Amino acid sequence: MSLKDGNAYKESLKTLNHNVFAFGEKIENVVDHPLFSPHIKAAALTYDLAHDPSTEDLVTAISHLTGKKINRFTHIHQSTEDLVKKVKMLRMIAGKTGSCFQRCVGFDALNATYSVTYEMDEELGTDYHQRFRNYLEYIQDNDLMVAGAMTDPKGDRGLSPGNQKDPDMYVHIVEKNDKGIVIRGAKVHQTGIVNSHEMLVMPTIALGEGDKAYAVACALPTDAPGVVHIFGRQTNDERRLEGGEIDQGNAKYGTVGGEALTVLENVFVPWERVFMCEEYQFAGLLVERFASYHRQNYGGCKAGVSDVIIGATTAMAEYNGVAKASHVRDKIVEMVHLTETLYCGSIACSCEGAPTPSGAYFVNPLLANTVKQNVTRFIYEISRLSHDVSGGCIATLPSEKDLRHPEIGKYVEKYFKGVDSAPAEDRIRMARLVENMTGGTALVESMHGAGSPQAQRVMILRQANLGRKVKLAEKLAGIKPPKS
Amino acid sequence: MSLKDGNAYKESLKTLNHNVFAFGEKIENVVDHPLFSPHIKAAALTYDLAHDPSTEDLVTAISHLTGKKINRFTHIHQSTEDLVKKVKMLRMIAGKTGSCFQRCVGFDALNATYSVTYEMDEELGTDYHQRFRNYLEYIQDNDLMVAGAMTDPKGDRGLSPGNQKDPDMYVHIVEKNDKGIVIRGAKVHQTGIVNSHEMLVMPTIALGEGDKAYAVACALPTDAPGVVHIFGRQTNDERRLEGGEIDQGNAKYGTVGGEALTVLENVFVPWERVFMCEEYQFAGLLVERFASYHRQNYGGCKAGVSDVIIGATTAMAEYNGVAKASHVRDKIVEMVHLTETLYCGSIACSCEGAPTPSGAYFVNPLLANTVKQNVTRFIYEISRLSHDVSGGCIATLPSEKDLRHPEIGKYVEKYFKGVDSAPAEDRIRMARLVENMTGGTALVESMHGAGSPQAQRVMILRQANLGRKVKLAEKLAGIKPPKS
Amino acid sequence: MSLKDGNAYKESLKTLNHNVFAFGEKIENVVDHPLFSPHIKAAALTYDLAHDPSTEDLVTAISHLTGKKINRFTHIHQSTEDLVKKVKMLRMIAGKTGSCFQRCVGFDALNATYSVTYEMDEELGTDYHQRFRNYLEYIQDNDLMVAGAMTDPKGDRGLSPGNQKDPDMYVHIVEKNDKGIVIRGAKVHQTGIVNSHEMLVMPTIALGEGDKAYAVACALPTDAPGVVHIFGRQTNDERRLEGGEIDQGNAKYGTVGGEALTVLENVFVPWERVFMCEEYQFAGLLVERFASYHRQNYGGCKAGVSDVIIGATTAMAEYNGVAKASHVRDKIVEMVHLTETLYCGSIACSCEGAPTPSGAYFVNPLLANTVKQNVTRFIYEISRLSHDVSGGCIATLPSEKDLRHPEIGKYVEKYFKGVDSAPAEDRIRMARLVENMTGGTALVESMHGAGSPQAQRVMILRQANLGRKVKLAEKLAGIKPPKS
Amino acid sequence: MSLKDGNAYKESLKTLNHNVFAFGEKIENVVDHPLFSPHIKAAALTYDLAHDPSTEDLVTAISHLTGKKINRFTHIHQSTEDLVKKVKMLRMIAGKTGSCFQRCVGFDALNATYSVTYEMDEELGTDYHQRFRNYLEYIQDNDLMVAGAMTDPKGDRGLSPGNQKDPDMYVHIVEKNDKGIVIRGAKVHQTGIVNSHEMLVMPTIALGEGDKAYAVACALPTDAPGVVHIFGRQTNDERRLEGGEIDQGNAKYGTVGGEALTVLENVFVPWERVFMCEEYQFAGLLVERFASYHRQNYGGCKAGVSDVIIGATTAMAEYNGVAKASHVRDKIVEMVHLTETLYCGSIACSCEGAPTPSGAYFVNPLLANTVKQNVTRFIYEISRLSHDVSGGCIATLPSEKDLRHPEIGKYVEKYFKGVDSAPAEDRIRMARLVENMTGGTALVESMHGAGSPQAQRVMILRQANLGRKVKLAEKLAGIKPPKS
Repeated sequence: MSLKDGNAYKESLKTLNHNVFAFGEKIENVVDHPLFSPHIKAAALTYDLAHDPSTEDLVTAISHLTGKKINRFTHIHQSTEDLVKKVKMLRMIAGKTGSCFQRCVGFDALNATYSVTYEMDEELGTDYHQRFRNYLEYIQDNDLMVAGAMTDPKGDRGLSPGNQKDPDMYVHIVEKNDKGIVIRGAKVHQTGIVNSHEMLVMPTIALGEGDKAYAVACALPTDAPGVVHIFGRQTNDERRLEGGEIDQGNAKYGTVGGEALTVLENVFVPWERVFMCEEYQFAGLLVERFASYHRQNYGGCKAGVSDVIIGATTAMAEYNGVAKASHVRDKIVEMVHLTETLYCGSIACSCEGAPTPSGAYFVNPLLANTVKQNVTRFIYEISRLSHDVSGGCIATLPSEKDLRHPEIGKYVEKYFKGVDSAPAEDRIRMARLVENMTGGTALVESMHGAGSPQAQRVMILRQANLGRKVKLAEKLAGIKPPKS
Repeated sequence: MSLKDGNAYKESLKTLNHNVFAFGEKIENVVDHPLFSPHIKAAALTYDLAHDPSTEDLVTAISHLTGKKINRFTHIHQSTEDLVKKVKMLRMIAGKTGSCFQRCVGFDALNATYSVTYEMDEELGTDYHQRFRNYLEYIQDNDLMVAGAMTDPKGDRGLSPGNQKDPDMYVHIVEKNDKGIVIRGAKVHQTGIVNSHEMLVMPTIALGEGDKAYAVACALPTDAPGVVHIFGRQTNDERRLEGGEIDQGNAKYGTVGGEALTVLENVFVPWERVFMCEEYQFAGLLVERFASYHRQNYGGCKAGVSDVIIGATTAMAEYNGVAKASHVRDKIVEMVHLTETLYCGSIACSCEGAPTPSGAYFVNPLLANTVKQNVTRFIYEISRLSHDVSGGCIATLPSEKDLRHPEIGKYVEKYFKGVDSAPAEDRIRMARLVENMTGGTALVESMHGAGSPQAQRVMILRQANLGRKVKLAEKLAGIKPPKS
Repeated sequence: MSLKDGNAYKESLKTLNHNVFAFGEKIENVVDHPLFSPHIKAAALTYDLAHDPSTEDLVTAISHLTGKKINRFTHIHQSTEDLVKKVKMLRMIAGKTGSCFQRCVGFDALNATYSVTYEMDEELGTDYHQRFRNYLEYIQDNDLMVAGAMTDPKGDRGLSPGNQKDPDMYVHIVEKNDKGIVIRGAKVHQTGIVNSHEMLVMPTIALGEGDKAYAVACALPTDAPGVVHIFGRQTNDERRLEGGEIDQGNAKYGTVGGEALTVLENVFVPWERVFMCEEYQFAGLLVERFASYHRQNYGGCKAGVSDVIIGATTAMAEYNGVAKASHVRDKIVEMVHLTETLYCGSIACSCEGAPTPSGAYFVNPLLANTVKQNVTRFIYEISRLSHDVSGGCIATLPSEKDLRHPEIGKYVEKYFKGVDSAPAEDRIRMARLVENMTGGTALVESMHGAGSPQAQRVMILRQANLGRKVKLAEKLAGIKPPKS
Repeated sequence: MSLKDGNAYKESLKTLNHNVFAFGEKIENVVDHPLFSPHIKAAALTYDLAHDPSTEDLVTAISHLTGKKINRFTHIHQSTEDLVKKVKMLRMIAGKTGSCFQRCVGFDALNATYSVTYEMDEELGTDYHQRFRNYLEYIQDNDLMVAGAMTDPKGDRGLSPGNQKDPDMYVHIVEKNDKGIVIRGAKVHQTGIVNSHEMLVMPTIALGEGDKAYAVACALPTDAPGVVHIFGRQTNDERRLEGGEIDQGNAKYGTVGGEALTVLENVFVPWERVFMCEEYQFAGLLVERFASYHRQNYGGCKAGVSDVIIGATTAMAEYNGVAKASHVRDKIVEMVHLTETLYCGSIACSCEGAPTPSGAYFVNPLLANTVKQNVTRFIYEISRLSHDVSGGCIATLPSEKDLRHPEIGKYVEKYFKGVDSAPAEDRIRMARLVENMTGGTALVESMHGAGSPQAQRVMILRQANLGRKVKLAEKLAGIKPPKS
């Protein structure tokens, strides 16, 4: 099968029979529903760009399984160059969407599972890796969108999975039979899942022997029996339902990528789609590998998103007639500086990547965690600077309906005009874009996507090799290390 | 007339005949409309608390004009103690509303105009101050809510008022006759104006002789002929119209205080309500005085708002079972630290206040500008820390309708539960409160309310007395000052 | 006895017979030794300013014990006005010295011990307070300089005093007899102790019953038998011994205030000078009270020091010809902003002070801890900005001897000249002042003086009243508090 | 000639006959003088490591001119791999020296001049590039240490070179004849120049036609007639002259790399060593290329230096018995995080490098400027955190002489001991290392080395491509670009 384009992707979604709820209603046609449409358009762009000669070098790759040209989002990284291209692709696409396009979670889940199943098999003599290769080939050949499904609801974060009062707070195996397994629980914050074909389930934390039943990785269609998706609210999501365009800010592609609570109510998964089943000792490795791949992304996609914020902020400064004020220029420089610092992190952790035993390339985990940690700070600061420069109007603009109103529209047009070349509508459109990209959901996603800050700090500490650093210091200080 | 309570205030609004538009529609009954209701409830609380024995010491004062007990929001500060009480009152009320209660703009406008008209009269021999005292007595006696109306649309910020292509970009006098004046233009970001009785117009920047017509201060009812209010959108404002309660976060009091574009289409103001008419040389003084009073507030009201954010964040940590994790505790300490730093600024600029020639007390302007500058940074950081601790769910929660849904409500209840004592509904309610208080409009208000950051920096530089500091350094460095 | 002036103070030091070591030598005449001279001049200024009509209002007070006029540094605060005057005095003097003048540790020790002995007596029926009043009267009448002696060496910070391998890691009572007690141990970081008349020993942490012997507060002369002072090194301290003036930066007053390790080798203290003896349950209170008073200071003295840094930095910008560059002005504004934020904290915690049971006024401890916490950050940032603006030369200037050299002096003069009005010597002097005030010891003192950052955070958490904040949030979120 | 080792390097310095002054004295033997010895040892290590099998891969390269193995510090980058190896080499060496080893300035000067002379020749038909290749071969063959000489004294920074009152404020050509040119002026902040064989002079800013005489690049021996070096002071430099070891902190390698004012008093340079002579239009390009190469370094060497600071801080925490306190661990994680963020920048700007027309590889200048900008912030923060964790003793320790003193040494040993396994001497040594690396000169070097912060911001703005970013935003906001 050839590479899908955006339309083919959308058409393929219509064949899904999944159980999606939003705003207390069951959604029959996700593709055409205005609440989902921007998310779907963003994902569709990742298909279209594979066909665009100016972007196909980044957005496609050659499958190491089949030798066929595939969409990069289904590719297993074969080199540091692949890792770098991933980052550049993410920045490029995010610059076009100004929002999340939801493909990287599945991309990272595929890569993490690929290498970890290899190592499991090596150590345990299992055959998960071959099963996974088969699955991967299916995904590549059919150019499917996969949602990576990691985060469990967790209940009381102070208790391990097996010690929760409600055992379903983490997804677990409730039955094993000759055909496959039955799982139960839920995954939260599932980005793009309502417009994905498949979901790849993974555990969410390192596990001990007592948590064996929670050590499960497997793949299933998003419309498998027993799967229910409950769509989460986002900042200003209702503006999509109002009928206008301007107030949404980014009417085409939305903001962050449509998250859902996905309930797995005794869902059957056949053995050929099971990639970990009770091997608790590998849960931590899978989580760490996925997390590092996923943290790598944030200096790519968020740099692309920031490019748009910087552009919008620069435009606002021009519309307001202050683009040359030195303090304004300085703030824009700061936004660029922070953005490029993020980008440096993603490039560096990619260049410093290395092959895993499976041959798939893995990022430098210390540097990848550093990137994400910076994202949890810098996106807030970039947004803050954007608010500063853009002006207070981003919080007090009247609605598009007022702008279009026969009686008062003239006032809106008159009084929201900036410099002579900046009509009110342009200024309002740009201000709405800033509003859309710098508040609420967009910020929180920067904080918690790919793991909360403390998760990165734990990883940084683990990778820091403090012992070696102490030795360097002892030598220079003239301290003899204790004889042991 | 006695002090109004909240109900009397609301009733009094119903007698207004003002021209209010929102979402492209003319709003006939502002008081009962769900879009405005939270703002009005917040303002009403400032009336109710004057009758509450536990708060009346802060919320009432004795008029220096009449000796009668008045609501503090109409009081002229007679001492540094009054200035301190203002700050404490703002923190206390904001802790109860978690949002803006819209009274301080008018409060500060009254105080600024009071002292500046005195100095104008002293220098110019005019009689504005007596006119203003009469007006003030009217406000105090009738316990009216006054909107301070300062910010003009400004068009091209690189041009002075008189050089704008459209002369209406700043409010100006278009006619003077024996009865009064006629003004034209608009004021933007008008907090609380749709539920105020009066508006007190002031110029927005220092003016030169060529901008004489823009030097106008005057008072008028918010329903004066020619006045049109176009209400601005806020983050998630439509959730108020959905019928539920939870998703609003703070269903009772909203978020920030309802801003409008107020158009003044050839509005007549009688002489007894005119307090500046072409005396351009006093425009800058009035702006600075108002701005400093207004910046004083931000370590009061924002500290109160932050108290709620800290409380909500602490509660989220408890619900999630992580309240004792050292990194969580440390982040909450940081939030408290930042909040108290803001509060220190407002207390200090009040204690260090001094009488103006009129006898009214003025804050220390250097310190007041310092406070607001910190607010433009710390509220973002407080919000960022709150997001960190509260968890990703604040950006992906399903709607209240999903929680109440007969089929899927059980999943929402099951999977959003935290520790055993934290039912999902409580956790969702708290997460929605965090969401409400830490994103979008709330942040932007912290940035631009009472003037954008650069405005404070200009004032700080002007007040810094660098020459004196250079002399201190020269003396210690052993440098002889040049003989001049 | 009347108020001493600086000379009388210096003369009085000569009568001390204390045991002072520095650089491996016993120092016979501390007063005239170039290593100590700047510290002593700074302390002497606190005596001189009591006689200066322009400063005596701040630097003197009326003793509540005797009604006599005393130096404020020996005063017990009788009002919030006293607390505010303390802060203003510290800022004023620090602006004149650009360095530490070492009086506040003793000042705070006197005030803390005053109120705590009162409360001890109230609860325990002891008579420490009267003893202390007698001692205080002696100090006031003789206008003595007192060193506050709190910080113990601590050994392994993970162990309590009584569990240390070496029992002397904290000062403790080794003998009690009818004349008095014998103590043993050491105090570290003793600011100004080598030029103080007296030292007031206090415990350094809260103590349990097992640490009874460590609960000791008492006063003794700095030259009591068994007391040895070993003077600590400071950044560039040897420049004082070179013979020149310029390279010291602040040749007159030095940098930070001369710290020593003070060893107490079985030192006898008579009962009339003992103010706590085994009442371990009051150790924590004494520490907290002292610490809060001491943290109050840092927005006073450090603001004064920063005033000088700002002045020096502004002068450097002028000498370099960049004073009008917008980025330079902006950095100077930031330095002012940070400085005034510190000052606000000290003013606010003073205004919000309250009487203790003894009648002595205590600062608001939450706000006082906030101040010091900010100092541990802002002084570094102020120094960083000063480096930025002042230029790289502050790290590469040749020595004064090169400037004075017959052959190469002309090159130094030629090539370190700035703008036409800035001769090289002035520029070098100012650069050396910046160097002196912004590196090494000066920074570390900002970090650890009055307690390390974590100590403040512990206090902030304890004072934060999170429970009340949670209730505010619950009310707004519509959450019913659990019935209990 | 083969690669020199450290000893050969030191011996070769003894043959120099240069004119070096320090502390007002002419220094006859730089190599053995304690003031210079640490700097020379650090530079010598760059020679020794070329012979160490474990480091030679990083520290040597194959000359593209001669095919011979050379020290990398004389190499012209032939690939992005070379650029990456440069960064890794710098981090590795800095981890061993804990200080500046002074080789990168000349390294970068060689690379910048190499590519710019090529482009000059291409455009102007000159033959500078061939001359430069000859010079480079001489350097490589003789394994010489080259000082890059860029920064002029600048006088009044508000005036261009040609408009200075004293024309010598920037190095300029005072004579051209058939043998060569004569130059005059001075270079400041000359790192490592007193122990370099050669200096490579370059202009310090972009020049206009009126500044032609200032457009000069050329090479000369550091002992050429007319060259005078006046050595600058560093923090605590005199401790090197005291005779002990501990108080220096890093007795072997010092702190930052020995800067001098180098006076060029009518110095003759033969034509074969002249690489720019009045071609003012290329001055800016040379500066930018040098600056970007030089800024690339700072995430390498400063990361290495930070590794040592982190190690020393971790050791201090262990000695103090607080290594497991969560706030201590968190601060160490932060130090690692900041360090790795710096490193990411240097790796990324190297990987994203590209060939110049000459074939030599150039770093990505946007990213390289980002790195250095972060260094001007993060090193201060790393130092601040180190102070926090290490404790106040780093500012109050007695001298080594006190530790060794027969009478009081026992007190120093007793009271500066930490946990049981940490003798006082180790703790003091480590504290002195922290002191050495985190104050004064070390900080200022991070600020101004490779250009002051504003220089980077100018470059970042120039490289930011804001126009493209505005277009991305316009497209998403639905704004039609103006027809032009």
